[in-house]
Amino acid sequence: VLIDRLATIGAIDHHAHLLAGPDTQYSLADLLTESEDPGLTAQLEHHPVLARARRDLAELLEVEPEGRARALIEAARIDAMFVDDGFSFDGALSLDAHAAAVGCPVRRIVRIETEAEAAAPGSGWPPFADVRERFVQRVRAAAAGEHGAVGLKTIAAYRCGLDLPVPSEADARAAYERWRAADVARLTDPALVAWFIAAALDATEGRQPLQVHVGLGDKDLVASRSDPFLLQRHFDGFLRGVPVVLLHCYPFVRHAGYLASVNPDVYVDLSLSVTLMPHRAAELILEALELAPATKLLYATDASRRPEVFYLATRWWRRGLAGALGRLVDDGELDLGGAVEWARLVLAANAARLYGVADLSP
Amino acid sequence: VLIDRLATIGAIDHHAHLLAGPDTQYSLADLLTESEDPGLTAQLEHHPVLARARRDLAELLEVEPEGRARALIEAARIDAMFVDDGFSFDGALSLDAHAAAVGCPVRRIVRIETEAEAAAPGSGWPPFADVRERFVQRVRAAAAGEHGAVGLKTIAAYRCGLDLPVPSEADARAAYERWRAADVARLTDPALVAWFIAAALDATEGRQPLQVHVGLGDKDLVASRSDPFLLQRHFDGFLRGVPVVLLHCYPFVRHAGYLASVNPDVYVDLSLSVTLMPHRAAELILEALELAPATKLLYATDASRRPEVFYLATRWWRRGLAGALGRLVDDGELDLGGAVEWARLVLAANAARLYGVADLSP
Amino acid sequence: VLIDRLATIGAIDHHAHLLAGPDTQYSLADLLTESEDPGLTAQLEHHPVLARARRDLAELLEVEPEGRARALIEAARIDAMFVDDGFSFDGALSLDAHAAAVGCPVRRIVRIETEAEAAAPGSGWPPFADVRERFVQRVRAAAAGEHGAVGLKTIAAYRCGLDLPVPSEADARAAYERWRAADVARLTDPALVAWFIAAALDATEGRQPLQVHVGLGDKDLVASRSDPFLLQRHFDGFLRGVPVVLLHCYPFVRHAGYLASVNPDVYVDLSLSVTLMPHRAAELILEALELAPATKLLYATDASRRPEVFYLATRWWRRGLAGALGRLVDDGELDLGGAVEWARLVLAANAARLYGVADLSP
Repeated sequence: VLIDRLATIGAIDHHAHLLAGPDTQYSLADLLTESEDPGLTAQLEHHPVLARARRDLAELLEVEPEGRARALIEAARIDAMFVDDGFSFDGALSLDAHAAAVGCPVRRIVRIETEAEAAAPGSGWPPFADVRERFVQRVRAAAAGEHGAVGLKTIAAYRCGLDLPVPSEADARAAYERWRAADVARLTDPALVAWFIAAALDATEGRQPLQVHVGLGDKDLVASRSDPFLLQRHFDGFLRGVPVVLLHCYPFVRHAGYLASVNPDVYVDLSLSVTLMPHRAAELILEALELAPATKLLYATDASRRPEVFYLATRWWRRGLAGALGRLVDDGELDLGGAVEWARLVLAANAARLYGVADLSP
Repeated sequence: VLIDRLATIGAIDHHAHLLAGPDTQYSLADLLTESEDPGLTAQLEHHPVLARARRDLAELLEVEPEGRARALIEAARIDAMFVDDGFSFDGALSLDAHAAAVGCPVRRIVRIETEAEAAAPGSGWPPFADVRERFVQRVRAAAAGEHGAVGLKTIAAYRCGLDLPVPSEADARAAYERWRAADVARLTDPALVAWFIAAALDATEGRQPLQVHVGLGDKDLVASRSDPFLLQRHFDGFLRGVPVVLLHCYPFVRHAGYLASVNPDVYVDLSLSVTLMPHRAAELILEALELAPATKLLYATDASRRPEVFYLATRWWRRGLAGALGRLVDDGELDLGGAVEWARLVLAANAARLYGVADLSP
Repeated sequence: VLIDRLATIGAIDHHAHLLAGPDTQYSLADLLTESEDPGLTAQLEHHPVLARARRDLAELLEVEPEGRARALIEAARIDAMFVDDGFSFDGALSLDAHAAAVGCPVRRIVRIETEAEAAAPGSGWPPFADVRERFVQRVRAAAAGEHGAVGLKTIAAYRCGLDLPVPSEADARAAYERWRAADVARLTDPALVAWFIAAALDATEGRQPLQVHVGLGDKDLVASRSDPFLLQRHFDGFLRGVPVVLLHCYPFVRHAGYLASVNPDVYVDLSLSVTLMPHRAAELILEALELAPATKLLYATDASRRPEVFYLATRWWRRGLAGALGRLVDDGELDLGGAVEWARLVLAANAARLYGVADLSP
């Protein structure tokens, strides 16, 4: 009965990526491994996720290729989505084309490292004194327009790990000179990453949530330094007062829930975790809800390229929520009305409140 | 049936704090968040703990305000409690007044950092050569009297993290001179913290258990360095032969259980974890009992200020134990008699043996 | 029904140790604590493993002492085993005697640290220029003969932790001179450990899997540095293309599963974890299978000294697999045929493929 009630609740996907165009050939196995390594995609035949994906998609065979993205987004009841478009891949749609395809309100999430690289090597290595202004202008400009940005994102966990230093102009300057001398495209210095995050927060006056990639990712991730505990000291430092959303979090789900419970402005998302482990979604949600209250947990898909992944991830979240909240109901911790209310918070209301998007109609 | 049997087993609360006086206004939400931040207490409305607390307390409405503490301690069947009184708050009772209010035998736990601060900045910064003697005298004096101390406690996890150095007189001296030059009240240097712990063990001739705060705490905790694995090398070093009780432990419950399984003198307590997550108490107890035997797990409340929290925490431990041990019985790992015996160990017998308090009657 | 099907599937134990001879007196409690500390063996009376061991062995009373090892290996349906014989203990059989006793095909696993110590202090501290050749010859020689080696193993987690440096000839040379000057038997320098691992991989042309001890061990283990995340950078470095099997893994089971999911050549084993925690085997297997596909999980016993432990560990793996896979079947993630196939992979087929031992008959 809970799963049926949840099927009627619309969802706000606060963390997604661009669709790929119709000429692309991304397989489900590619998307569910975040990889095109044939060794990795082949092994998915012996993991529960692929069989579940096929089974759950089989119900949708009647959906026409024409308008398939829109039909899948509607079937998933995704009412709005926020797209991190700062990562390019073959055949990626433009944000406008993506929005037209999905048919729901779309807003941008600005990936800080991408904008920093555009402002530095991508702008011909301007002097340090000019980099910040170029970067800030890019971040400010991103907020404008129909799909204007509602949030920031950092992938520091991929670049240097989450044990970031306190932002410092002097350290950033020295790191910038090293970066310029090395003349590489990729931003990896922790002093610079911290400094660009601080600049992005200034540019948005601390009003946009900061999404932080935590844990789970592909094999480029610096896993041993993707523990959100490493960020902790900054929650009372340069991140004070900024809503911080810890993304994915596995295997640090309990760490993230703990941080959300002791910091008023820290939130937990399990997006990629649910997408890769639908058979364990209920367990992971229960772990996040050990310490984090229902007001601090957010659904998202982290989907990319094919609309099927948006559909599956959202379906799996509803199923996982029904499993987790249903267990709390069975244990006498919650009544059915409370479970439905908590699901509504996780699926949409927390994101609407956090990103300030009560009214997203164009 | 197991829960009914457990209701008849008295409990020894080996880690609690002082009650607050009758004029104080601590809300349940304050106490269940260890915070007075309105952002944190408000979010508890969407966490299972608060609803469960209200529901479980509703049964006790007939308890009169007069003698309420004693009535709640009796209802919880707490037969004795050991109180860390080394942390002050508005309206805290004296230890004598606390003991009178709760009506059961009460003993002290000496918080090492508090005594160290009293012996150093609190004594007008005596020369280093005198600090140790002042500290040792305080620790020795604490063992005397009706509520004499039966254990030591360190909050190194709050001050510098658990990766303590090997205690060294020379390093302690240098750190003391830095501390004195800085003239701050708070002890945070790891060389000094380690040295004071060693001095406290000497003062008690290694006969009192050492409680170590691990994991879970409020946001001041250095979470990334509160992993008990960081202490490991000292179990065969300066902590050899000392009973060490790892307090709270979340999210490092498995780490703590592992250490208890390979070190004869290491114990695990889940006090604050059960108090903050009663809906997951059974799961956490099962995780601790993956490697730790039932002789190594200890109940405690970590309660403070209001007697309701002592009552609730103890009730939740019995319920969690019934859930965890009941599952082992269902799986054929244990019979009902074994489950009752194990519960008795966790609730009282382990603490009685460890703290040497077979007879606590005044 | 699943447990009955699994009882018919033969097992390849890819990680075991030598049996002890008939005059030895190793108690079950010794073996299930990896210790002879009476404090640790006594506490096992209050842990589920010992009662389960006794209960499960009681069924086998009719097995005669004469030929008991062979009878137990047959009862466990162990079709082959790979033995790390690089660790000596009182009364250990020779590998030939062990093979004769167990009656199934036996191959060696070469413990790198043991061979390195034999090639350096054990060979009278030859000059650095000769050490590598001596070591390589030992590793190559191990592959010959009836019980020739099929894999390598490192216990770096015991010696220096898993945060190994990139192997470097210059650093190894300097570390070797320090080791020689100290004249101690035990290899503990991380630069040398990494360099010997690289030499062993060269000696076997990267064709033998490398077993890496991760997490769980006795109290000598450097627990805080036994996290497999610390190895990650080497999977695309000097370990690229080498099948790496993470052994035991607790409490880092999820970390290991994550690494197996993003690296085509990384595998997970839960051997000692299942042996020490049979009451939680299903939960641990489900955690490993959150991200790792069934092609990446391997059964092993890590058994030693007494054949009963081989029997029990194998029995507990089948029971744990039946519990874990049965839950996936109940949740609609897998059908019964799939569950049986996955169990076959975990129990034997993954090891046969990985170690290249399709035909082990002598």
